Amino acid sequence: MTQHGESADSHHAPLSGALIGNGHKLTARVYFADTDFTGVVYHARYLEFFERGRSDYLRLAGVHHTELADGIHGEVLAWVVKRMEIDFQRSAKIDDILTINTRTEKVSGARIYMAQEIMRDGDVLVTARVEAALVNGEGKPRRFPREWKAAFLGDNGEEGHRISPAPS
Amino acid sequence: MTQHGESADSHHAPLSGALIGNGHKLTARVYFADTDFTGVVYHARYLEFFERGRSDYLRLAGVHHTELADGIHGEVLAWVVKRMEIDFQRSAKIDDILTINTRTEKVSGARIYMAQEIMRDGDVLVTARVEAALVNGEGKPRRFPREWKAAFLGDNGEEGHRISPAPS
Amino acid sequence: MTQHGESADSHHAPLSGALIGNGHKLTARVYFADTDFTGVVYHARYLEFFERGRSDYLRLAGVHHTELADGIHGEVLAWVVKRMEIDFQRSAKIDDILTINTRTEKVSGARIYMAQEIMRDGDVLVTARVEAALVNGEGKPRRFPREWKAAFLGDNGEEGHRISPAPS
Amino acid sequence: MTQHGESADSHHAPLSGALIGNGHKLTARVYFADTDFTGVVYHARYLEFFERGRSDYLRLAGVHHTELADGIHGEVLAWVVKRMEIDFQRSAKIDDILTINTRTEKVSGARIYMAQEIMRDGDVLVTARVEAALVNGEGKPRRFPREWKAAFLGDNGEEGHRISPAPS
Repeated sequence: MTQHGESADSHHAPLSGALIGNGHKLTARVYFADTDFTGVVYHARYLEFFERGRSDYLRLAGVHHTELADGIHGEVLAWVVKRMEIDFQRSAKIDDILTINTRTEKVSGARIYMAQEIMRDGDVLVTARVEAALVNGEGKPRRFPREWKAAFLGDNGEEGHRISPAPS
Repeated sequence: MTQHGESADSHHAPLSGALIGNGHKLTARVYFADTDFTGVVYHARYLEFFERGRSDYLRLAGVHHTELADGIHGEVLAWVVKRMEIDFQRSAKIDDILTINTRTEKVSGARIYMAQEIMRDGDVLVTARVEAALVNGEGKPRRFPREWKAAFLGDNGEEGHRISPAPS
Repeated sequence: MTQHGESADSHHAPLSGALIGNGHKLTARVYFADTDFTGVVYHARYLEFFERGRSDYLRLAGVHHTELADGIHGEVLAWVVKRMEIDFQRSAKIDDILTINTRTEKVSGARIYMAQEIMRDGDVLVTARVEAALVNGEGKPRRFPREWKAAFLGDNGEEGHRISPAPS
Repeated sequence: MTQHGESADSHHAPLSGALIGNGHKLTARVYFADTDFTGVVYHARYLEFFERGRSDYLRLAGVHHTELADGIHGEVLAWVVKRMEIDFQRSAKIDDILTINTRTEKVSGARIYMAQEIMRDGDVLVTARVEAALVNGEGKPRRFPREWKAAFLGDNGEEGHRISPAPS
């Protein structure tokens, strides 16, 4: 029986997910804390799953929150989310195993645009478009280091692989 | 000194906020749990403030989560968020006193569209457009009771007051 | 009807609660985000209600998180919880209006011991004993300023009023 | 460099952890959402890590939240935490890789007692003793099915392996 992915209990997922093309794929479980009294995942908790996907994507691409905070780029830096558009299509439930797909759509100066989706057993549950920026300790926007563009967008520096099927 | 609204500590805010025109205004405090290691409020926690605003707006308009869950409309009903667009413009900090403004933009069949904003000392921090629906216990969409339309949109049933410029 | 304190919707509670004897009393609402799929408040969310009680108690006693973080005592300071014992006796539900009572039991050198309880309509739902300390930016424990002892324990500096009935 | 376990990024951890003696071991990452403005993990979020450990332990022992909720034992059942004692000894930080160890200490009638600890690189950060019970849909306590005792306590039905000294 594959309900809630229980057959997958013995499977090993990389803790930080995996890089795929110009994107990233992460596996995560739904626990008590993620749900609300209507029986499904509380809508704001999907944003935590999205954030885990983005953080692990950055981690595997070589960008670490701790290094940013430690000032290795000359000053304290941190990521901030500037805008999100989120479509909640289907609900996740307790014990579900979710896949979080993250893909870079565009990198420009001081902004990065990502497309994300949360899936379960091949069904898309929630999609999001996320615009994020880098700020210093005073909240001032900062440009990305030049080498990041290649890290996020792949060799051609323009467009990467699509998460398949791509969010509409 | 009015930093973080500390001068307002002795002021009394109605626990469930107040109805204003076809909208609602709620006051809430930022606590430890709302913040993250970058020193400001974690982006997904703004969605909890927005949800409090919507819940208390519904409450004062006479729509109670508990009654929906108890099936007074013939079956178990619950609200679900279908879509959100969120602009994170400025950051809130620990101890800040926030105002959450909520306004109904449109009610159609089985969907309600709301505009929300989180303010501090007259500055807009975060804005959101929210599309919500009513579903039954199996997640099937349900039409709103007829009397709700008037409750949310005011007398003319078409358009209500704008929250922008924001109520003081 | 007073179910879930709905009759109290028009009542005004002080945003930061009120000092009572050597203790503090705060009113707060249960929202969607506080609940889990079993239909009641998720156990770890009670700790957020307790933290709000302690934070507002400190605030009204004149101790501000922001001032501690700004280093007005000579270095960056922050509160840390060192130990908690929590008894979950009854469950809170969506829409419930809760009262969080906080009382100082003992202040010694660099530790403060508080007794807390969460109540609904006169019933005790959850009680906690909390041991907290003050640390600097490197996590080193720091002694309390002398004047705090009086602030937390009242005139006699030894014992204050009991929350009635006191948690056992 | 093994700071924050970053060298372990390529390692594969079983999504639901692993059974070890009469206990369980789970690996989890600290993300933005887990931290607060003091720069470390917010104290109540450790309870979410503990809950993940207990849930996955139960899962691998064959006890599923979804089956309990579906009434396979004759009525709707759910776990509730009745009491916790928590010692917060050291702080976890963003990007840390944590190990959550869970061990059954005692099973009696309708209560299960567990000892848990959160570790990082061999250091104990937080320990907890947890008392949990099984309740039906009305919150009434229910006795455990007979076969669970063996599942949680191992062959001799009395005592299992100790997690301390902790498994590597």
